[in-house]
Amino acid sequence: MQVKINKIGVLTSGGDAPGMNAAIRAVVRGCAFQEIECVGIYRGYQGLIENDFEELNARSVRNIISRGGTFLKSARSKEFQTIEGRKKAYQNLKNADIDALVVIGGDGTFTGALIFNDEHDFPIIGIPATIDNDINGTDFTIGYDTALNTVVEAIDKIRDTASSHNRLFLVEVMGRDAGDIALNSGIGAGAEEILIPEEDRGIERLVESLKKSRKSGKTSSIIVVAEGDKSGKNIFELAEYIEGHLEDYEIRVSVLGHIQRGGSPSCYDRVLASKLGIGAVDALINGERTIMVGIHHQKVVSIPLDIAIKNGAKYDKNLRRVADITSV
Amino acid sequence: MQVKINKIGVLTSGGDAPGMNAAIRAVVRGCAFQEIECVGIYRGYQGLIENDFEELNARSVRNIISRGGTFLKSARSKEFQTIEGRKKAYQNLKNADIDALVVIGGDGTFTGALIFNDEHDFPIIGIPATIDNDINGTDFTIGYDTALNTVVEAIDKIRDTASSHNRLFLVEVMGRDAGDIALNSGIGAGAEEILIPEEDRGIERLVESLKKSRKSGKTSSIIVVAEGDKSGKNIFELAEYIEGHLEDYEIRVSVLGHIQRGGSPSCYDRVLASKLGIGAVDALINGERTIMVGIHHQKVVSIPLDIAIKNGAKYDKNLRRVADITSV
Amino acid sequence: MQVKINKIGVLTSGGDAPGMNAAIRAVVRGCAFQEIECVGIYRGYQGLIENDFEELNARSVRNIISRGGTFLKSARSKEFQTIEGRKKAYQNLKNADIDALVVIGGDGTFTGALIFNDEHDFPIIGIPATIDNDINGTDFTIGYDTALNTVVEAIDKIRDTASSHNRLFLVEVMGRDAGDIALNSGIGAGAEEILIPEEDRGIERLVESLKKSRKSGKTSSIIVVAEGDKSGKNIFELAEYIEGHLEDYEIRVSVLGHIQRGGSPSCYDRVLASKLGIGAVDALINGERTIMVGIHHQKVVSIPLDIAIKNGAKYDKNLRRVADITSV
Amino acid sequence: MQVKINKIGVLTSGGDAPGMNAAIRAVVRGCAFQEIECVGIYRGYQGLIENDFEELNARSVRNIISRGGTFLKSARSKEFQTIEGRKKAYQNLKNADIDALVVIGGDGTFTGALIFNDEHDFPIIGIPATIDNDINGTDFTIGYDTALNTVVEAIDKIRDTASSHNRLFLVEVMGRDAGDIALNSGIGAGAEEILIPEEDRGIERLVESLKKSRKSGKTSSIIVVAEGDKSGKNIFELAEYIEGHLEDYEIRVSVLGHIQRGGSPSCYDRVLASKLGIGAVDALINGERTIMVGIHHQKVVSIPLDIAIKNGAKYDKNLRRVADITSV
Repeated sequence: MQVKINKIGVLTSGGDAPGMNAAIRAVVRGCAFQEIECVGIYRGYQGLIENDFEELNARSVRNIISRGGTFLKSARSKEFQTIEGRKKAYQNLKNADIDALVVIGGDGTFTGALIFNDEHDFPIIGIPATIDNDINGTDFTIGYDTALNTVVEAIDKIRDTASSHNRLFLVEVMGRDAGDIALNSGIGAGAEEILIPEEDRGIERLVESLKKSRKSGKTSSIIVVAEGDKSGKNIFELAEYIEGHLEDYEIRVSVLGHIQRGGSPSCYDRVLASKLGIGAVDALINGERTIMVGIHHQKVVSIPLDIAIKNGAKYDKNLRRVADITSV
Repeated sequence: MQVKINKIGVLTSGGDAPGMNAAIRAVVRGCAFQEIECVGIYRGYQGLIENDFEELNARSVRNIISRGGTFLKSARSKEFQTIEGRKKAYQNLKNADIDALVVIGGDGTFTGALIFNDEHDFPIIGIPATIDNDINGTDFTIGYDTALNTVVEAIDKIRDTASSHNRLFLVEVMGRDAGDIALNSGIGAGAEEILIPEEDRGIERLVESLKKSRKSGKTSSIIVVAEGDKSGKNIFELAEYIEGHLEDYEIRVSVLGHIQRGGSPSCYDRVLASKLGIGAVDALINGERTIMVGIHHQKVVSIPLDIAIKNGAKYDKNLRRVADITSV
Repeated sequence: MQVKINKIGVLTSGGDAPGMNAAIRAVVRGCAFQEIECVGIYRGYQGLIENDFEELNARSVRNIISRGGTFLKSARSKEFQTIEGRKKAYQNLKNADIDALVVIGGDGTFTGALIFNDEHDFPIIGIPATIDNDINGTDFTIGYDTALNTVVEAIDKIRDTASSHNRLFLVEVMGRDAGDIALNSGIGAGAEEILIPEEDRGIERLVESLKKSRKSGKTSSIIVVAEGDKSGKNIFELAEYIEGHLEDYEIRVSVLGHIQRGGSPSCYDRVLASKLGIGAVDALINGERTIMVGIHHQKVVSIPLDIAIKNGAKYDKNLRRVADITSV
Repeated sequence: MQVKINKIGVLTSGGDAPGMNAAIRAVVRGCAFQEIECVGIYRGYQGLIENDFEELNARSVRNIISRGGTFLKSARSKEFQTIEGRKKAYQNLKNADIDALVVIGGDGTFTGALIFNDEHDFPIIGIPATIDNDINGTDFTIGYDTALNTVVEAIDKIRDTASSHNRLFLVEVMGRDAGDIALNSGIGAGAEEILIPEEDRGIERLVESLKKSRKSGKTSSIIVVAEGDKSGKNIFELAEYIEGHLEDYEIRVSVLGHIQRGGSPSCYDRVLASKLGIGAVDALINGERTIMVGIHHQKVVSIPLDIAIKNGAKYDKNLRRVADITSV
């Protein structure tokens, strides 16, 4: 079914991720191609409520594909969590003659979209963009690949110091519920151990493994720890515990923090964002609503938003095995 | 069928690709895990003929996962193209008690492996590593993702100059037969036009498109040209032709060349190389022979080597459409 | 002498260089600090003639310090080379009540400024920005440090391939008259040989040195060649010559080209540009005219423009000796 | 006076810094050039005591110029702080016929060298390598330029997030006693405020400035804080204080930590290390002892070690002014 859409609004919401700008650009240019008007909404749902709109054309988005962050900015909106807030938002959309929304973000963004749609029956398409890769129904989220490269580059730097000093480093990476960043960057950076939220292998095993590893001739070690790891200790407590149970190990902690969200997106993330941005406009034109466009087996697919917000952690046992074998 | 393999030889051959070291490392550590001996063979098939072997253990490959190139080195071997050369190679393998070979490279490497196997019935597993991503049966080859990032970073730099001077740049990227690098990096870098070997859209269309693009307000442009593009002109001739048919355009040519092969591998390539290296050892143990381990839908798969060497170009019409729409 | 300046115009001209944006930003904010109005002039002297002006305030230049190129754009202006052109330019400055100009560029830019000043006695301050580091009276020009890092990173990548294949690479870097980029990047990248415009050591010596180097156990080599080297051959002819006079060497050529001009500026270039931008505004306020602000022994200094345009190549014999010794 | 030196020992000590490998390489190749033997000593002074020596020749140091850290490794040695430890060290040097030492490190390294020289009258040359740039008598230390680029790249990434969310970020960078990293990287990254150990401008001024800055239209801010800043609060307490005194500001803290020590050295650091490494060998041959080779006004100079260890912080009031003006 081809449904006539005349004007689309686009916004970014939640934690920013590299590639959000590339996604906005693709939505805007997809609109230009389809001769649909496009309106940028600043600061996510908050800007929707505050009527913070700007018309965007193909030229508005030039030279942004290489930039991290989101030029439409992002924000948390408490007001959008209220019925009144959402009413205001709906009224603003109506007043501006906007027929449909494309929302770029993660599960919080999509949850807001679902509620809004329930109340106002407004056509919405989601585009998954979050470094955590924890969205259901898409193999990858925009920003995840860039974050992996950022983490690996940072750990490569730490490895220089670790090797020079025969030290043990605990490196905290993002991932409260999903260990994808930790597991993949840990393999990529050649980490000796990787602690993730999806499993609890016990702190004693860790200590034993480190002892064995040193005996085998390893003089320095990197342990990658996801924020949400199951050790029951924060990373500083964990460092203290290990130091108390190992001899001759100088231990250091590094919390990578917010650098993981920024940076110029990788080629993969730029292409993914371009595909999904175009895909979102196509989906609207094809009459699809309340879905997320995702990538599955290199193809753009549509996933109902209520499915997309279900737990999307992708714990891969084979990857854990690869980590264990390559880190000997 | 579990077959007893006691000693594996590993080599890299053909053009080098970022992630080859990570693949060697994974093969070596996969062997250590399975308690198989591992022998590194220097300079590809030439080292096989010249008996240029070295025993490798888990410690031999430390701190190489982050390095471009291949520490086992690569070479073209004319001698291996002769029956006598291959006989010598076989004899050296027998003398060293090597039971199986893992060869890391592209289609030339695999073709050599097939001939060798035909003559000597020697167990061989291939691992696809080439920046061109032109191997059949695997979604991605090792090195391709890194090369895309290298190209995009280079074009981002060129964009700075192009924008500052309102210039048109023709940028030549690798790809004699496959346009994957050109098409993906072109989308990623926001190129206005992309010329690839898989299609001939005509040079007149190109000139018309550039005229239209300038009229629409574009003040600078990047054209990404694959080595094997179908314009029938080399990139300097192409530049001259365009300059002759457009007004007011200062044109510059940049041939990216060999920087595309080097550099520290991306996280994706490191993880892919780790998976495939472990997968190759697993495959040998499981009795598989004369296959390539590839990645398909994020899983390690086995592809007969004679299938793998068939044309693996992955021209994706949807991607061409994405390129056309996002470059308006 | 403190002279009242009410409005400054700022422009970038000539080849772009990383850090030009940082310099513009510092001029604009220096003006804001001194409560002087600031006008950006687009496309260098051409924009001056075409009245392509825009008022800039402290907020206009936010988030540009990290960006390569120049947002004011640059251009060559044939019209500015005529008396009439310069008259128009002068008239436009008068009409806009601009009291003084800050011109950011290289020796061509400064030469234009001198002629303009001769004819119209207009206060001008130059800021040296060119990757070639060939301006007299300043230890460093804006963009040079970044270009060195770009070249070294590129050669590091080429080294991966050179080492993997035991190859000899000829890498052409910028520098028609000055060998600073070649000599410094050559030392930094560990090049085996460096050919620069300032000296002619003879092509026979080069061939002999390469033979000796291979005998000593070097299996791969990088030769860095400045555009203006004195071999009397272009880089492809040079490669052919060497290939004809050496055995067993596979030779490849890489012309780095325009990537050397782009990229996010290094910290050094950002700080240098910030110092010089502020210094230019200070100089105007202090009554200085027709000078360039440069950096000498880490301090901002003033150099008469007619001195600045004299040959500023900084050939350093000690550096040549360091290159020769470290490349054994 | 030319004194005959037959064998030199070289070691790295203290915190590692990018460019240490380049310095070792230059010492080794300087020795090869002068036909002096060269011995690498592992793990700094501790390896001296434990006789952890290895002969190095020109080929031993190939392909290390681009690598961070130090392949000779570094360590703190408590034993070297005892008379007995230093005696052992001396005996080992004598037994190995080593005539002189080149020690690469910071003020701790040089202090150890001075005591050792006092007791055993052993020829020692120091090479300043520390990211902190806090050595007296040299304009720059090896590793400092690279660290500045690392910090600026990290803050550029954080800026993406800060801008996207209109947030205030406190970023802690290295520098317990010297604010060089904070001040230069702060200017380079366009930080709104920079807190350094050399001055105490008061926390109230900071809060006032942030209020003013937001009023002027700034929507996001970066504050760079040196470890040794004079606020009397650690960075988390500082964040809490600011949050308590400002409205509408979401505040985040990022501690950059050990990534600042690692990474491939910048071109500047590689060239500096090459100059100083050669300079150290030259100095020994010229009969100089108990000095550090440093860089001053682009020339290699000799500084008595007891002068070098005096406070070398280089607080530059002009730079503070540049920071204040450009951050408006």
